[in-house]
Amino acid sequence: MRALVLDGNGVRVERSHPEPVAGPGDVRIRVLRAGVCETDLQLVRGYMGFQGILGHEFVGVAESGPFAGHRVVGEINCACGACATCESGLRTHCPHRSVLGILNHDGVFADTAVLPQANLHPVPGSVATDEAVFAEPLAAAFQIPAQMTIDPRDNVVVLGDGRLGNLYAQVLGTLTGHVLVVGKHPEKLEVLRAMGIATCLLADAPVDRSADVVVDCTGSDSGLPLALRIVRPRGTIVMKTTVAGEHAMALAGIVIDELTLVGSRCGPFDRALTALSDRTVQVRPLISARFPLDRGLDALEAARGGALKVLIDVGDQGPLPE
Amino acid sequence: MRALVLDGNGVRVERSHPEPVAGPGDVRIRVLRAGVCETDLQLVRGYMGFQGILGHEFVGVAESGPFAGHRVVGEINCACGACATCESGLRTHCPHRSVLGILNHDGVFADTAVLPQANLHPVPGSVATDEAVFAEPLAAAFQIPAQMTIDPRDNVVVLGDGRLGNLYAQVLGTLTGHVLVVGKHPEKLEVLRAMGIATCLLADAPVDRSADVVVDCTGSDSGLPLALRIVRPRGTIVMKTTVAGEHAMALAGIVIDELTLVGSRCGPFDRALTALSDRTVQVRPLISARFPLDRGLDALEAARGGALKVLIDVGDQGPLPE
Repeated sequence: MRALVLDGNGVRVERSHPEPVAGPGDVRIRVLRAGVCETDLQLVRGYMGFQGILGHEFVGVAESGPFAGHRVVGEINCACGACATCESGLRTHCPHRSVLGILNHDGVFADTAVLPQANLHPVPGSVATDEAVFAEPLAAAFQIPAQMTIDPRDNVVVLGDGRLGNLYAQVLGTLTGHVLVVGKHPEKLEVLRAMGIATCLLADAPVDRSADVVVDCTGSDSGLPLALRIVRPRGTIVMKTTVAGEHAMALAGIVIDELTLVGSRCGPFDRALTALSDRTVQVRPLISARFPLDRGLDALEAARGGALKVLIDVGDQGPLPE
Repeated sequence: MRALVLDGNGVRVERSHPEPVAGPGDVRIRVLRAGVCETDLQLVRGYMGFQGILGHEFVGVAESGPFAGHRVVGEINCACGACATCESGLRTHCPHRSVLGILNHDGVFADTAVLPQANLHPVPGSVATDEAVFAEPLAAAFQIPAQMTIDPRDNVVVLGDGRLGNLYAQVLGTLTGHVLVVGKHPEKLEVLRAMGIATCLLADAPVDRSADVVVDCTGSDSGLPLALRIVRPRGTIVMKTTVAGEHAMALAGIVIDELTLVGSRCGPFDRALTALSDRTVQVRPLISARFPLDRGLDALEAARGGALKVLIDVGDQGPLPE
């Protein structure tokens, strides 16, 4: 099969990569569409030391199990299901987990991928494939209200105008009328403004310590220090940025101002699919480029160059209605 | 009056320092007893750039107001009471505040100190002066359950066996039966064990990611990295250590493990005085040295040398019953 593969020699499209092997409880998935994420770009730069098929955002058709023949999306953490962490309900934190396209598990930039049946969610007929491919990052946005209460009066600042900042701002905007996105890219801020979301350029960031909640999805080590200048005393900083390596930080302010920092990662797919189905979140305006799998390297390059969301067309759905 | 003064020339006892001036709403307090805190030692090293009379833990006799002639303890943050932060209820975070013996406000290592009436709490007759001097750090311990819920099944690890670690462990031990103090000083760990609190040496710290809550009161920049190795995924780290300057930190783990970090500072005096009165917390075993104010430099030196709690005898209570 075709696959976009990362190894010690770099990243390339292979035309005859071996098919993935499905273990007990696994379902083979014929991939239709995939999305490029910032994490994919970081993996190419060496983050996590990953080698294998890249990609973890996808829509595909299940080849077996209860969703056979139907479009599915999938949670990316594959838990062991047997350890103390799994038994405590924290399967996404299983210390033995593999992670689709990120850790010990081949990803979805390929004709076929494999995931446990338990990870799959059927895509509602009302949600197009181009929309459903956003389920994974959108679920991560819904993880914020799953971890903390956002009050309708809360003043929320989202740092970062990229694909994640956009989705997070839309989701948080359903909970409070006071969301501001701070970004560096006028064209990306314009996409947000067209959605009715307030924006400002980085130079105009409100460093007056008035934000109740600041969400850092800058993808940069400059995000947290900026968040510390924006959040009010006793406020909350949601950390969505994974930055490799160590960074110098002044930490006393966290104590003096009694701040709460909340690390936040993957989230509930059911809420994401519902939001896509009932149109409370718009994702089509984010699609800024599209490449066939054979041009996977161009897809990565476009994402690296700052495209809002790059999709990869992998396969046709065939006779099923979309 | 006598006062232990810090300025550009260092720290010294002055015999005829000017009396502090009481403004509107202020009460003059004749100091009886004071306690040396790690923060005092950091101020001497240059933290906050403070100059003036040191000291913020005290018991004294109010000279005016509703508590005139009675023993009082006092909250250290002096808020403006008029700004948006104060009006939102966050007086301890008033951006215009002064802080007793820490920021633009002369402290209590002196015969007389001044605090707003609103900051004062009368000491119950059942609480001795030597005990009440612990009200301020003990209130900081009660700030932890004020900021978060500790479940009776929670596995709590306190990093640091000093005066704060001891008080925090005692308070948290009233909420869960699973408190472990990790420390470096066998003699301080022995004080905790004598109170029935489990302890271990740093080399034996449980870095198996099983703690629900880790409290960092090491006073060192090594505390947070250690906490990150001890706390479970989705667990909470309470940050009680203010370390000056910047420190290199790997932050990705906070996101990947979806940790919550909670900065925590001053707390509720009423709960501290109640705990001292009903003996749910023992403080006398912590008193390891005592000096008259004239030997204030020796008091600082003893605290610096690792004494658990150093008290300064400033004045006699006089004819009042203790």
